[in-house]
Amino acid sequence: MIQIAVIGYGTVGSGVVEVIGKNTQEINKKAAEEVYVKYILDLRDFPGDPYEDRVVHDIDILLNDPEIKIICETMGGIRPAYDFTKQALSRGISVCTSNKELVASHGPELLRIAREHNCNYLFEASVGGGIPIIRPLNYSLTAEKIDSIVGILNGTTNFILSKMETDGADFGTVLKEAQEKGYAERNPEADVEGYDACRKIAILSSLMTGKNVRFEDIYTEGITGITAADFKYAAAMGMTIKLLAIGTMVPDADPVSKEGEKLYACVAPFMIDQNHPLYFVHDVFNAVYVHGNMLGDSMYYGRGAGKLPTASAVVADVVDCARHIGKTIMCFWDSENMEVAPMDDRVGRFFVRVAAAEAGQVKSLFGSVTEVEAMEDSEFAFICGPLSEAEFATKVEAFTQPVKRIRLA
Amino acid sequence: MIQIAVIGYGTVGSGVVEVIGKNTQEINKKAAEEVYVKYILDLRDFPGDPYEDRVVHDIDILLNDPEIKIICETMGGIRPAYDFTKQALSRGISVCTSNKELVASHGPELLRIAREHNCNYLFEASVGGGIPIIRPLNYSLTAEKIDSIVGILNGTTNFILSKMETDGADFGTVLKEAQEKGYAERNPEADVEGYDACRKIAILSSLMTGKNVRFEDIYTEGITGITAADFKYAAAMGMTIKLLAIGTMVPDADPVSKEGEKLYACVAPFMIDQNHPLYFVHDVFNAVYVHGNMLGDSMYYGRGAGKLPTASAVVADVVDCARHIGKTIMCFWDSENMEVAPMDDRVGRFFVRVAAAEAGQVKSLFGSVTEVEAMEDSEFAFICGPLSEAEFATKVEAFTQPVKRIRLA
Repeated sequence: MIQIAVIGYGTVGSGVVEVIGKNTQEINKKAAEEVYVKYILDLRDFPGDPYEDRVVHDIDILLNDPEIKIICETMGGIRPAYDFTKQALSRGISVCTSNKELVASHGPELLRIAREHNCNYLFEASVGGGIPIIRPLNYSLTAEKIDSIVGILNGTTNFILSKMETDGADFGTVLKEAQEKGYAERNPEADVEGYDACRKIAILSSLMTGKNVRFEDIYTEGITGITAADFKYAAAMGMTIKLLAIGTMVPDADPVSKEGEKLYACVAPFMIDQNHPLYFVHDVFNAVYVHGNMLGDSMYYGRGAGKLPTASAVVADVVDCARHIGKTIMCFWDSENMEVAPMDDRVGRFFVRVAAAEAGQVKSLFGSVTEVEAMEDSEFAFICGPLSEAEFATKVEAFTQPVKRIRLA
Repeated sequence: MIQIAVIGYGTVGSGVVEVIGKNTQEINKKAAEEVYVKYILDLRDFPGDPYEDRVVHDIDILLNDPEIKIICETMGGIRPAYDFTKQALSRGISVCTSNKELVASHGPELLRIAREHNCNYLFEASVGGGIPIIRPLNYSLTAEKIDSIVGILNGTTNFILSKMETDGADFGTVLKEAQEKGYAERNPEADVEGYDACRKIAILSSLMTGKNVRFEDIYTEGITGITAADFKYAAAMGMTIKLLAIGTMVPDADPVSKEGEKLYACVAPFMIDQNHPLYFVHDVFNAVYVHGNMLGDSMYYGRGAGKLPTASAVVADVVDCARHIGKTIMCFWDSENMEVAPMDDRVGRFFVRVAAAEAGQVKSLFGSVTEVEAMEDSEFAFICGPLSEAEFATKVEAFTQPVKRIRLA
């Protein structure tokens, strides 16, 4: 028997207990041992809960119990999860987590502590909910040089964008509906501003490069500015709008660069067309699109959030830990920071809407552009590029009236 | 340094050597040792090949060299690959293979021999080419009860069907083009008759159930009967036609059944609509759609064949073996045969084309059906079901003129 503890008995934590209860036979077979939840740590009591008697309020009870080999950290947030995780790993207790904030902020340090104490810090559930993506990156694509990861990594925003597209509705209306359905938080900022996706692409980019990609270095733009009119334009061009999280290696022309390539990383709404497999990822589904130099394109698709899918990923980590007691599983994520190239240098194409009165300037500013039939007489719409973000920003300054732009993937 | 041998220096085998040569740094880092190709076994000589000096013709040279720890079996076919694999595993040499015929025919036995000799028999490349699917099933979805796997598992047929759809061309025309492009073999039977996909779904179904699903027990129907007209009907209904390989657990009403559920498995062309993620898998791409009881739907997408993608999967297995010398990695695939429910019992819906003269019988035979606008006056088309394959076959006997049917997914 392998005894574990769950810290944080909220949505994911209670999901972990539920998954272990429901798929006991499968899990024990794969773990080669009976997985037993001995403690549940939470500030609250849960009278009437079937696991009521296992609830404790003091982390030291878990940490000082030599029978506890694995902890599921499903608290979220940095404090106190960070301290609890460090303490556990320092005692050789493996930690499995769904906590993307903590992984993105302190991943390399926690991995180092795990290595030093022959235990594991696993975080499959921190990106893509139930979609296996961390393990494929670490153990499956081992013969690849991965040069690009593009993901739809946030279920809330993908639900909102899908619904805006289907209903022709505006952001505010759909956000309200998403909140009522429980798909968006009352304070939706972390999702709709792209912060959640930013943490996740920081984690994936770190695993891609083997160095530490700081989430603070990643250009992040949310979806609050996307309108029903933008979707009309997209549809007219056979495209849709998705919040993409991108980490991609680009050859570096700069002769002073040591590596010969640099990392671009960003989170922003992009227009994508039907030739892109991510076009078809609707509603709360997430997907991660990976390019390797031998394999070419591959994609991993599934539910990016939700109690049971996320909990399933945490429990898969528990199984992995159970099979590797006393042995650290490989994970290449050094503490050395990876330089993220300035967003200004990123080269791409842009869909642009300007006032019709400014149309005369477009040709002189951008040269030859692809005009897009305007939805309103007062507007002029076009596609320009490829040009850098900095060049685009400079040119756009010439316009006196508001300009709307969405990047093209 | 870990020394390996490649047996079979054809497309995949030379790809293995190429991948190791090109991604040396990444592979050695992940393997934690330098991976060195010491021998290449083939009947032929390869004068001028950069690895010419490592080519040998006698399997005993490899088997008797105590430095060889891993063999990549990229010969294909049962003989002599089966004997060579058994001999290697019996000596504690791990084997990584792309050989789906051998895995589907002798998987449990070879896995047992590997276990008995503390080595590994890995076969990521045998299904889905470069798409990580075996490893996710074995190590990622460990907290799941997987109840359904539906795959587009053959690149040749998916290319042919995609091209038939796009060009409005008939099977024969597109097959010829595929052969010219090298996407189809001169003898295309294994692909177009579904035999290749059958081996692959046998392997995936075995991993899903943990028992041995015999490929001989899987109902298999190819794509040679699909016509341009069928695609016109599909398009008119917002659907397409795909060769699906299916393994799915269905609750069993039969009280004598021990497990309470039974396995259906088949390979056949199906009509699928745009709500199905497999709808969007075009050309030579493959995808595997997996349903688990906690995670719900997930999908794994990528290149299902090709020299480098397949080789990349073989080398990923080499890395896994290198990290587990002397230790068998888990794989649940017992030798006990899993009963496959008779195809006759399968319940589903059917798209049917009959002679217009027979339209009068349709209602009396099938009850209420959904009529589909006929492409020709001489024809009557409809969708019927759900009903079992046996019921359908019996009803259809009443028609005197030829009947065409395609299953609906």
